[in-house]
Amino acid sequence: MHTRDGRCSNRNYTENEKGRPPQVRRAFLFAGHMNLDFAKAGGLITAVVQDHATGRVLMVGYMNEEAFRKTVETGFTTFFSRSRNKLWMKGESSGHRLVVKEISTDCDLDAVLVKVEALGPGVCHEGYESCFFRRLENGEWKVVDTRSYDPAGVYGGKS
Amino acid sequence: MHTRDGRCSNRNYTENEKGRPPQVRRAFLFAGHMNLDFAKAGGLITAVVQDHATGRVLMVGYMNEEAFRKTVETGFTTFFSRSRNKLWMKGESSGHRLVVKEISTDCDLDAVLVKVEALGPGVCHEGYESCFFRRLENGEWKVVDTRSYDPAGVYGGKS
Repeated sequence: MHTRDGRCSNRNYTENEKGRPPQVRRAFLFAGHMNLDFAKAGGLITAVVQDHATGRVLMVGYMNEEAFRKTVETGFTTFFSRSRNKLWMKGESSGHRLVVKEISTDCDLDAVLVKVEALGPGVCHEGYESCFFRRLENGEWKVVDTRSYDPAGVYGGKS
Repeated sequence: MHTRDGRCSNRNYTENEKGRPPQVRRAFLFAGHMNLDFAKAGGLITAVVQDHATGRVLMVGYMNEEAFRKTVETGFTTFFSRSRNKLWMKGESSGHRLVVKEISTDCDLDAVLVKVEALGPGVCHEGYESCFFRRLENGEWKVVDTRSYDPAGVYGGKS
């Protein structure tokens, strides 16, 4: 898969590149809430995050209007944390940011699909590439991935 | 991509095959609510539906415990419709069912990723393969797909 300007994706990042402005940012001009239906679910829309290169679904988060606006304006995927009740730019502390490559919305405008370039070894605070690391097998959730990094080293044991 | 038993996927369906029992069904033995966190969002978890063969995200729905149980037991993806306030087996009237190939859950057990074989030409009631047929481009949602079927012929003009 290619980036939107046709170049091949290079997933080998160096530390210095973590904070660079995403190139996709210039393609966006933000216009209000883009007619998204935030009212349907108490101010939040569902945001599915998918790796733009591999197609793997990495995580599901939720965005209020401000989180969506920040995602578009900054090019870094930003959620509204339901448990912490505040904005949460993914990777702000860990460096594992999600660089926006493409945003789509669904037919009833209450969900967005964010294709990203995931900086760092994984998006899951438990140390996996994807939060969906458990699969249903014979009536049980089985861990089917191996950890891609040590979460204690990144999050200091906190989630 | 292959099905879980290693065979290549065959996406050319005939009408007669629409109602066949999914082969994956036998792999599941249901055990209660599988520790999913339905309480976090008023009885519902988020269900992301992804085409098992292409990796395309097709739609996002919501499941209560019963919808999840029915999905596992029948092998056909079943949601809880928030707008109609009732269970909704996708494709029950249109025939465009979503045959479960694999179910994963995320780290905090409040979302599932359902990889499916989508029967029929598309999952979206507006006539598209995927509900995510609009992409953000220069501050506007632009339709980037062409319709794969005529929704009026399937849904009779109703959504």
